[in-house]
Amino acid sequence: MATQPTPDASRRSEKSRRAIYDAALALVGEVGYPRTTIEGIAARAGVGKQTIYRWWSSKADVLLEAFLDLSEQASRDAGPEYEFAIPDTGDLATDLKAVLRLTVDQLKDPRFEIPSRALAAEGVVNEQLGRVFMTKLLEPSLLLYVDRVRAAQAAGQVRQEVDPRIALELWVSPLAQRWLQYTGPISYEYTDTLVDYALHGIAPR
Amino acid sequence: MATQPTPDASRRSEKSRRAIYDAALALVGEVGYPRTTIEGIAARAGVGKQTIYRWWSSKADVLLEAFLDLSEQASRDAGPEYEFAIPDTGDLATDLKAVLRLTVDQLKDPRFEIPSRALAAEGVVNEQLGRVFMTKLLEPSLLLYVDRVRAAQAAGQVRQEVDPRIALELWVSPLAQRWLQYTGPISYEYTDTLVDYALHGIAPR
Repeated sequence: MATQPTPDASRRSEKSRRAIYDAALALVGEVGYPRTTIEGIAARAGVGKQTIYRWWSSKADVLLEAFLDLSEQASRDAGPEYEFAIPDTGDLATDLKAVLRLTVDQLKDPRFEIPSRALAAEGVVNEQLGRVFMTKLLEPSLLLYVDRVRAAQAAGQVRQEVDPRIALELWVSPLAQRWLQYTGPISYEYTDTLVDYALHGIAPR
Repeated sequence: MATQPTPDASRRSEKSRRAIYDAALALVGEVGYPRTTIEGIAARAGVGKQTIYRWWSSKADVLLEAFLDLSEQASRDAGPEYEFAIPDTGDLATDLKAVLRLTVDQLKDPRFEIPSRALAAEGVVNEQLGRVFMTKLLEPSLLLYVDRVRAAQAAGQVRQEVDPRIALELWVSPLAQRWLQYTGPISYEYTDTLVDYALHGIAPR
């Protein structure tokens, strides 16, 4: 029978949980996904292996939660208005440019960049993991763009027949590819340009 | 002093070279970049290690040439009009849609897909390799789009102030991200849609 944890036990758990997240992210960044193990995470976090198995069933589960926690931190750091939605000032270009500038900062932050690259690399060659992390980590943030584009359609700023799920790739994917594949430098000016091209097209108006 | 190879020796070399390319691509697809070795490639190709070292100085060099050869094969398979340029029928949308449909076919071809994923994954976490392969493999194919967009600018089909190197990412990067990160299905209809959005924008005209 489960007993209610005392406040002290709950604080201890929270501390262990955070130590495990930090250890998991640091380890995957250093040795890559295939060589990251539950034992290695436990040793680095200074907890017993059983502590990890009590909460998670696999290293993929630990890492998934550690990355979710990292994304939540990044959203909180960006300000409360970014936590669950892309702000709607009434001007789509302004709002997209603002959120993409935050993404540029995040992609260049080593706390995020190093573990994220390790995970992305594994996802490229490990389809099952790639799909799990896409569904749980990438897709939820893409859906925030879907919502913002839908609102812009309702406001007459985006054509009705445009598929929001494809539209968002006009700015998200170029940035992702430059980051993943070193196909070009990443800057605010670059992401601003992507938004302008996506909204107005490259053909004369 | 180098002697001129006899036709027979040259044919033998060509056969060895192809066997080495095939072995390198198969091996990297099976075991990944870090565990691919010159020894492993030699064993699989049925040649001595020295045969490989006579032509290349590292496994990265062998793989680079093997991938260049694979891309050249793909261009030849697509037809002579695709070998050195994107065809210019006078209509940018038509030409981009045609070449992207060929790219969709190539991305789904296991001969290309399996080794390419292994290389792309390594490039994500190994910046030096990622940059070499970007410069030697990705960038030359992107420059064909730059040329085609410039021609469209000269023909008045693309605004003069558009940067062709960024414009091409509106269709190349979404396709690349769906392929690399499983963020969505890949189809002719999808790439056609990307071209339409990129040319005309998502905002009302």
